[in-house]
Amino acid sequence: MSLAKAYAALSANAPLTPYTFERRALRDSDVAIDIKFCGICHSDIHQVKDEWGGSAFPMVPGHEIAGVVTAVGAKVTKYKVGDSVGVGCMVDSCRHCKYCEQHLEQFCANGMSGTYNSTEQDKVTPTQGGYSNKIVVTEDFVLRIPENLPLDAAAPLLCAGITLYSPLSHWKAGPGKKVAIVGLGGLGHMGVKIARAMGAEVTVLSHSEKKREDAKRLGAHHYYNTSDATVFEKLAGTFDLIVNTVSAQLDIGAYLGLLSVDSTMVQVGAPDKPNTVDAFPLIFGRKSYAGSLIGGIKETQEMLDFCGKHNISCDIEKIAINQVNTAYERVLKSDVRYRFVIDMATL
Amino acid sequence: MSLAKAYAALSANAPLTPYTFERRALRDSDVAIDIKFCGICHSDIHQVKDEWGGSAFPMVPGHEIAGVVTAVGAKVTKYKVGDSVGVGCMVDSCRHCKYCEQHLEQFCANGMSGTYNSTEQDKVTPTQGGYSNKIVVTEDFVLRIPENLPLDAAAPLLCAGITLYSPLSHWKAGPGKKVAIVGLGGLGHMGVKIARAMGAEVTVLSHSEKKREDAKRLGAHHYYNTSDATVFEKLAGTFDLIVNTVSAQLDIGAYLGLLSVDSTMVQVGAPDKPNTVDAFPLIFGRKSYAGSLIGGIKETQEMLDFCGKHNISCDIEKIAINQVNTAYERVLKSDVRYRFVIDMATL
Repeated sequence: MSLAKAYAALSANAPLTPYTFERRALRDSDVAIDIKFCGICHSDIHQVKDEWGGSAFPMVPGHEIAGVVTAVGAKVTKYKVGDSVGVGCMVDSCRHCKYCEQHLEQFCANGMSGTYNSTEQDKVTPTQGGYSNKIVVTEDFVLRIPENLPLDAAAPLLCAGITLYSPLSHWKAGPGKKVAIVGLGGLGHMGVKIARAMGAEVTVLSHSEKKREDAKRLGAHHYYNTSDATVFEKLAGTFDLIVNTVSAQLDIGAYLGLLSVDSTMVQVGAPDKPNTVDAFPLIFGRKSYAGSLIGGIKETQEMLDFCGKHNISCDIEKIAINQVNTAYERVLKSDVRYRFVIDMATL
Repeated sequence: MSLAKAYAALSANAPLTPYTFERRALRDSDVAIDIKFCGICHSDIHQVKDEWGGSAFPMVPGHEIAGVVTAVGAKVTKYKVGDSVGVGCMVDSCRHCKYCEQHLEQFCANGMSGTYNSTEQDKVTPTQGGYSNKIVVTEDFVLRIPENLPLDAAAPLLCAGITLYSPLSHWKAGPGKKVAIVGLGGLGHMGVKIARAMGAEVTVLSHSEKKREDAKRLGAHHYYNTSDATVFEKLAGTFDLIVNTVSAQLDIGAYLGLLSVDSTMVQVGAPDKPNTVDAFPLIFGRKSYAGSLIGGIKETQEMLDFCGKHNISCDIEKIAINQVNTAYERVLKSDVRYRFVIDMATL
């Protein structure tokens, strides 16, 4: 066991405060990591506020973890001391169900172990996340961060990056494909960079003019302000894939009208309330409205390697950990371009 | 030109009454067909009642047409006098758009010509359907009905059959796949027969006990009464494909919970009002909610050949054409097992 320093929520809606707790002793297959940076994901806030129900406290949030290996267990083969590594939304899964066997640990039939606000596979021991100076994780759930990527800007790839990479890859964004990204926030800006690097023709659909210049800078070929209703007529039948990163309610039927035949709109931001979906645009075009959840470990490594190759990382605003509560407020106002990352040297 | 006898609606909501009109003279690529039987599709009623808007009158409904070739144009190569043939929901399309080139004429970018309540490709000449004693159709939109199928029971394959065959084929129903059919009506009963013949394990989900025995007789392996809410817990994560034939509103999220990871629920019956769709079950399982519309001409022929091979036709109740208005009332009460077919000898 070793003492870890952290920031934690001690109860639902409480501000995050300094907290110390024990990380487990290194097992044979474990990797010990000094956490250098951790991104702030909107889902951290949902869970700290217990907005999804079932939150367990004290809670150390954080699942966009980047750091350096400080020790490895006797049977570890993939990592050595000094390696740049990351940890994302999962720290373990059952390893043997049909989904784990397909490298889809995020859908583990027996329940994956979330990085925090969850339990180890014993279903008892709580997990604690990355707003902390260290973590111990089984090597199979540790990711290698390409050496050419800065650790701070790479951290959010572990959630925001894979959340967009996975649907773009699964639904085959690439040369000759027209891809729309709805919403240009932490998720959306990664979608633009990754879809562009995949070779797709990328359009940002945003509800104002505010991010037009940013969208172009990030790599979007086109930008449309959806507050202009004529956009939905002009772009009817255009896109081969739409990724919706907006977690507020949208008129899904209107967006389905923008898809070409046999194409898909993928939801990656989850609205609190169900959307209404008109079946007619689905039927008249064999279209699909789908969902996607992060990605498996193998695919997450593939994403990191892709980002290394294309020199893609996140646009971040780095903060000290004592600014975390203020950062939460700013996230709720969408006042960040495009991801807060906590510098753990400030802990 | 030749005079055709028919039943038509002369205005919205008017009862169908005897009507005569001219069919076009045979062109080089045309096939002239004596209509022997025509199925009654729920969409006939929607259009007669102008419930989708834009209905044109007088309207001769009917797009589940089975008959015999009586004459062929000079350049017709595929059919000869005496052949058993069918005509479905389309009688022409532009032939050159990207969807026509993919054999998806139902999604023709320039608008396919519906069999009735539509126009020829000149966008002017009205089309009239199958509640009639004859029709003239370009050979490319005529289908061959396998000789082993009875013409009366084969007629509804042209709409109900292809409406179910297409999604079952597209989303790969077959051996090792668990397929659920929601609703056991004209569409659903075809779904059971076809999915069974494809080799899938077939479950009927129906909102009462009434059709339990029928479902088994038609080939379903399992039947669940969805008025029992525990069914949704018991079957959670079970199906690889759900085809929803119910055009009333359903709790789509509840049905999405019955899908396994990476699976699809396909809507083929279109509700008047949008369904609400909770994004969480889509996201937590990379599931899709999709739509499907009949099938292209090539696929419709493939379906007919498949039905011939497996000796599949519809369960029908044959009526005289002067019973058509009563039959409409009974369709609206779901009082038919499972499709009305008009015997044109009674015209």
